[in-house]
Amino acid sequence: MPGNRVVVYKGPGEVAVETIDYPKLEVPQDVVTGLGLKKAAPHAAILKLVTTNICGSDQHMVRGRTTAPVGQTLGHEITGEVVEVGDDVLFVKEGDICSVPFNIACGRCRMCNEGKTGICLNVNPARAGAAYGYVDMGGWLGGQAEYVMIPFADFNLLKFPDRDQALEKILDLTMLSDIFPTGYHGAYTAGVTTGSTVYVAGAGPVGLAAAHSAQLLGASVVIVGDMNAERLRQAQSFGCETVDLSSGGELPDMIEQILGEPEVDAAVDAVGFEARGHGAGAEEAPATVLNDMMTVARAGASLGIPGLYVTGDPGGVDEHAKVGQIGVRLGLGWAKSHAFATGQCPVKRYNRQLMNLILADKAQIAKAVSATTISLDEAPKGYQEFDKGAAKKYVIDPHGMVAA
Amino acid sequence: MPGNRVVVYKGPGEVAVETIDYPKLEVPQDVVTGLGLKKAAPHAAILKLVTTNICGSDQHMVRGRTTAPVGQTLGHEITGEVVEVGDDVLFVKEGDICSVPFNIACGRCRMCNEGKTGICLNVNPARAGAAYGYVDMGGWLGGQAEYVMIPFADFNLLKFPDRDQALEKILDLTMLSDIFPTGYHGAYTAGVTTGSTVYVAGAGPVGLAAAHSAQLLGASVVIVGDMNAERLRQAQSFGCETVDLSSGGELPDMIEQILGEPEVDAAVDAVGFEARGHGAGAEEAPATVLNDMMTVARAGASLGIPGLYVTGDPGGVDEHAKVGQIGVRLGLGWAKSHAFATGQCPVKRYNRQLMNLILADKAQIAKAVSATTISLDEAPKGYQEFDKGAAKKYVIDPHGMVAA
Amino acid sequence: MPGNRVVVYKGPGEVAVETIDYPKLEVPQDVVTGLGLKKAAPHAAILKLVTTNICGSDQHMVRGRTTAPVGQTLGHEITGEVVEVGDDVLFVKEGDICSVPFNIACGRCRMCNEGKTGICLNVNPARAGAAYGYVDMGGWLGGQAEYVMIPFADFNLLKFPDRDQALEKILDLTMLSDIFPTGYHGAYTAGVTTGSTVYVAGAGPVGLAAAHSAQLLGASVVIVGDMNAERLRQAQSFGCETVDLSSGGELPDMIEQILGEPEVDAAVDAVGFEARGHGAGAEEAPATVLNDMMTVARAGASLGIPGLYVTGDPGGVDEHAKVGQIGVRLGLGWAKSHAFATGQCPVKRYNRQLMNLILADKAQIAKAVSATTISLDEAPKGYQEFDKGAAKKYVIDPHGMVAA
Amino acid sequence: MPGNRVVVYKGPGEVAVETIDYPKLEVPQDVVTGLGLKKAAPHAAILKLVTTNICGSDQHMVRGRTTAPVGQTLGHEITGEVVEVGDDVLFVKEGDICSVPFNIACGRCRMCNEGKTGICLNVNPARAGAAYGYVDMGGWLGGQAEYVMIPFADFNLLKFPDRDQALEKILDLTMLSDIFPTGYHGAYTAGVTTGSTVYVAGAGPVGLAAAHSAQLLGASVVIVGDMNAERLRQAQSFGCETVDLSSGGELPDMIEQILGEPEVDAAVDAVGFEARGHGAGAEEAPATVLNDMMTVARAGASLGIPGLYVTGDPGGVDEHAKVGQIGVRLGLGWAKSHAFATGQCPVKRYNRQLMNLILADKAQIAKAVSATTISLDEAPKGYQEFDKGAAKKYVIDPHGMVAA
Repeated sequence: MPGNRVVVYKGPGEVAVETIDYPKLEVPQDVVTGLGLKKAAPHAAILKLVTTNICGSDQHMVRGRTTAPVGQTLGHEITGEVVEVGDDVLFVKEGDICSVPFNIACGRCRMCNEGKTGICLNVNPARAGAAYGYVDMGGWLGGQAEYVMIPFADFNLLKFPDRDQALEKILDLTMLSDIFPTGYHGAYTAGVTTGSTVYVAGAGPVGLAAAHSAQLLGASVVIVGDMNAERLRQAQSFGCETVDLSSGGELPDMIEQILGEPEVDAAVDAVGFEARGHGAGAEEAPATVLNDMMTVARAGASLGIPGLYVTGDPGGVDEHAKVGQIGVRLGLGWAKSHAFATGQCPVKRYNRQLMNLILADKAQIAKAVSATTISLDEAPKGYQEFDKGAAKKYVIDPHGMVAA
Repeated sequence: MPGNRVVVYKGPGEVAVETIDYPKLEVPQDVVTGLGLKKAAPHAAILKLVTTNICGSDQHMVRGRTTAPVGQTLGHEITGEVVEVGDDVLFVKEGDICSVPFNIACGRCRMCNEGKTGICLNVNPARAGAAYGYVDMGGWLGGQAEYVMIPFADFNLLKFPDRDQALEKILDLTMLSDIFPTGYHGAYTAGVTTGSTVYVAGAGPVGLAAAHSAQLLGASVVIVGDMNAERLRQAQSFGCETVDLSSGGELPDMIEQILGEPEVDAAVDAVGFEARGHGAGAEEAPATVLNDMMTVARAGASLGIPGLYVTGDPGGVDEHAKVGQIGVRLGLGWAKSHAFATGQCPVKRYNRQLMNLILADKAQIAKAVSATTISLDEAPKGYQEFDKGAAKKYVIDPHGMVAA
Repeated sequence: MPGNRVVVYKGPGEVAVETIDYPKLEVPQDVVTGLGLKKAAPHAAILKLVTTNICGSDQHMVRGRTTAPVGQTLGHEITGEVVEVGDDVLFVKEGDICSVPFNIACGRCRMCNEGKTGICLNVNPARAGAAYGYVDMGGWLGGQAEYVMIPFADFNLLKFPDRDQALEKILDLTMLSDIFPTGYHGAYTAGVTTGSTVYVAGAGPVGLAAAHSAQLLGASVVIVGDMNAERLRQAQSFGCETVDLSSGGELPDMIEQILGEPEVDAAVDAVGFEARGHGAGAEEAPATVLNDMMTVARAGASLGIPGLYVTGDPGGVDEHAKVGQIGVRLGLGWAKSHAFATGQCPVKRYNRQLMNLILADKAQIAKAVSATTISLDEAPKGYQEFDKGAAKKYVIDPHGMVAA
Repeated sequence: MPGNRVVVYKGPGEVAVETIDYPKLEVPQDVVTGLGLKKAAPHAAILKLVTTNICGSDQHMVRGRTTAPVGQTLGHEITGEVVEVGDDVLFVKEGDICSVPFNIACGRCRMCNEGKTGICLNVNPARAGAAYGYVDMGGWLGGQAEYVMIPFADFNLLKFPDRDQALEKILDLTMLSDIFPTGYHGAYTAGVTTGSTVYVAGAGPVGLAAAHSAQLLGASVVIVGDMNAERLRQAQSFGCETVDLSSGGELPDMIEQILGEPEVDAAVDAVGFEARGHGAGAEEAPATVLNDMMTVARAGASLGIPGLYVTGDPGGVDEHAKVGQIGVRLGLGWAKSHAFATGQCPVKRYNRQLMNLILADKAQIAKAVSATTISLDEAPKGYQEFDKGAAKKYVIDPHGMVAA
């Protein structure tokens, strides 16, 4: 039996590729102990990775903004080929190429029944919801690796209908495991629909995915705000308007220059708790983006908040931020009857639809986020460049299966 | 032409009944000037008040927690008899007894078209949304009076089908102008449905209306929390469970004792920005209720927030609170994928349905909130007693039309 | 290993109790062959029946109105105690008492993911959707038996939280397997909500369940129509208004006498394709109920249609009816902008909520449908009496577990 | 005061342009008498027509398939410039160019409050809902004219933000009065969303508008079926797949050739009651399209039915069709849990959104339906060509305001 090479967190600012055991069809011991599941997992499958992406939320761990221990395996944006299935896997088979939602879900609890796979009750003793390769998320091994075990495989795997077609469009399809649905969730829960004007805060991969999703949902105008000029150019490359938040201008004014009015129909927070104030040299100010969105979203709007807010942040700017308490101008939102939608995207709710768009050549997500292929050995370098603000989405290709 | 006696704000802690001009079919000058409406209002009607209630949000003004000027007329919970209609009033007639939603709405703008009458764009130059007798709400005169002018009468008035039946059930029907729909809106936007377990924060009239609404929406268990023993007894009187927040116990523990688990399916904030911490002698802590609700609402829940949060609070506990910025544990809500619904209740969305329930004897809202009739002259005393925490809802009867 | 006694269809008008093999943890051969599932079913459980009800849709088979072969096992309204589980059953355990939705669903396909468990794609080679003990529904054995095999047990079983409490309320809880959710689905998809006026066509058990559900959803008035006086009295017993369709009166007139207007807000068809015209001696007229509902439902209404319409009916009144084609006055519905909701109730969407209501003593479904306990040996007699129009819902108690 | 030239129905197959009185700010006498409205209409405006389109539903009258009397004025697809307003018109002004929803609605009744402007209760004594220039629709004068009176102008008119921009895009904007929203309504109520596969029955203007709307809603593949080769080519011109129903092939087979499976996610009936069977020389068969849609829509689908079905059809194929009763295979739809959405499109629900798309150059509806400008005098010729199946949408330009 072969080993398994995987990206591992080695301390603040550092990751490495290390070799661990080849995966087994078994539930992590934490879940067995904490929730009473059987250890043997006839519901699970082993995947050989085809692609596995680096995510902005991995950076929270690598920057030391979480309690992730040294040795934490990384990676939750997984696309792979099924190489082994348990006795109770009935609907996916060896050789199938599948996308894996980053949220691990049992398919059998009340939340999964309601389509809320981001807060499954049976996969994490610490709280509702789990993910691969993430601190405080159930102890499931990371997927920036050669191989990975996927529990409840019939429920979690989205099979691509044709292997050759899948490999041909793999740089688009690899975005189905997280950021494309996450961006879409942000736009969808913000109520973006035919004709909407939309503001997306943040031009990282999730922001760009939200912006492209807003286009696919029928927005008339999509405006992306960031302080990184390269990322703003990336947003412009596929038809978005942009506002440069480092310019020192007022956001409503900049929006008015584009739309003729200072408000938008819908707003998406694709930044989260590591938000900074505006202008050059702005400091971290965790509620800035939320307060901006209440300012520029019209009365009656919904705010989609896929950007991560945490319950604890060792690197928080003050005592309040360290426990996830931030200064929200709630009165402003209340006066405008705003609604707020938060939480992890339940990827399964959207990934099939978005796959169909990709396969019909109606979505260009790889281009929108500037997908860039690297090898597994190049993963540490990819983490560094992404952390510096490269306007790229890094896609690891552990087995050299992605065509040049 | 007769004068018109009306309740007026005279300064912190003080109201009086004064005589002003009999109302005209005219739009307030602020609205004419600020929004360009025609002054003449052929769409308006004059109502002779049948009942008009004192509301908790009136107390915000009377306590000096707003910028209301001395002389502000008061009253937005209006039920009356039509005594005069303009040329373009087609569907209500003299003699009709009608309920008036507290939100003034034009029926002709995008927001009204979408049913969002709480944020009508054409009735207040200062912001979206207006109300009778309220600071910063467009300058419309108050309805704790003998007579009141209602603009856009065909749109705003809900006619009761039968005059005698209406007068017979007037103590229930008078709650349709605000608190019954507001409480229902809180429960409805919190997602209360068949079988839900519900926590309602606050046992004032809105909290009690939310609790009764939750019952009507099919809740299996409704738990009401407050620090006022008399109000908690009132909640118990119609079948609610209660938790005493002055006891010093932990809210999840108290809920677990009732339900067998520390979380509920849905939660309603019927307190708002004047929230206090728990325990005897607790001080004002504006985000306490919100943070409590995130703690006790299960993952995936929606939080209904009919309690008022303001954009500016001269009496706020600190500089942040004075501009409506409060310390929300948003990371906690985000981790649980909570959704938040805020804003004024759009009364028209619900008042017809609730009227039908009352007329069919299926809702007992007057009993739930302990409706108590007083004369117009007794209004100042009613304000004082309500401010002291009386477990009553005061209904002013300016013309002695309510049967003893 | 013991045998298993089960109710079997013996030809038109005839059922018998026969002994077959004790169930195995295996998928029926038809499903294995037709859909490629593995025969071994580690996802399945064996239940010892606590209760199992006779359903009106069983009568379609027994009356010879379907292509059910002699020897067809019967019964899909199943409540039981888990006595054996497969290796991949993780969340239910021996001794648990559970309700079983009549729709068999895999929990892993697109339809199940969307909550549409009535049209699961993986359990019936003939079409979407399956059920226990029903013709053309996948070959799964019937549950009017001592024991029954439940596939995908973690997904399909609803565990009652407390065994003693469950046995105490068993006559209510036994309705969760089919008619309570089916009636609720009819009312819910008809848009019944707070304050609605509702017409329910048919006072059989599903109609009565729809009527009680409409009450629980907040209807202001519920009107039930039928031609069977005993069933109408049953509807009156829990607060419904009734109209006697055998009287020869016009339905809109009879509704106007009750409501003061000839239309209702919402209508439910709890009859289906075996509908008859009005008046004494009325003949079968399969679209009568639908056409009635379009007549009495107000413009903009939704029509909930839990009553069964079939694709083929060997006993149909004419050649059209034999292939499920019926004379619908669609133009009438179109002029009123009606929406129509059809199909099997997806029981899982509602059963947990309704269980919570029952356990909180907020729903009295056993009383509403007049639940009547009989032994397994009495099943053939129960079929006969039910077919004659007894205003009772027969609950078979194969092991004598229901308290007297 | 000038006269007013208008298109008038002169008998089967014949229309003419005649001169009638210039419109007044008055409600039609039928509505005054039947519903008790005041005759004077301070809520109304007079519009000078900019464009006014010929609609397929006009053809029903002109073909003699309705009870329209000789002399009936025609035209309900109206775009115009405001030239006079009543005293209670506050938000549109002389010189504004506006789109007029074909449904006349009061904005003050329960249906309008719910956004159901297609079934307004206050504008037609015969039934819910009204339109300009249409039999049995309240007696409102037609808009294929030089001038037209619009009641409840603030509610009914959609003002274009900029006059010059409006005239530049007028051939797209003119479709907002009916067919663009109607097509969109069909696609929307069929549940078309991101990634859907869609079948649209009928390649007339509404079918083409539904097909383009499906694209805008994010469909992955849109298939249009018709028997008219020119109309099918028109559908192909903007990216639709097509099936030729005159070919004698089976619809599911033709769909399978395109999609690889014989079913679609969503289906739209853009034909209505004048449907014909398949193949060359097929006869009228009013339920054909509906039955087709149930065959090819997947289980769980919604069917959008913007195509008109009537309550009475003097030219119906048999006695049943003459009273609007048609042979629907309801059992097929029921087995697949289909939902059916019928009725006139409530244009106001969608026209603002679609306007925003047009103004942002994101919708090309004029091109999709092949908008073709003619003068008022050419209207009779336009009716003839359209009736023969020309793949064009005729836009009448009464004042020569449309740029060449």
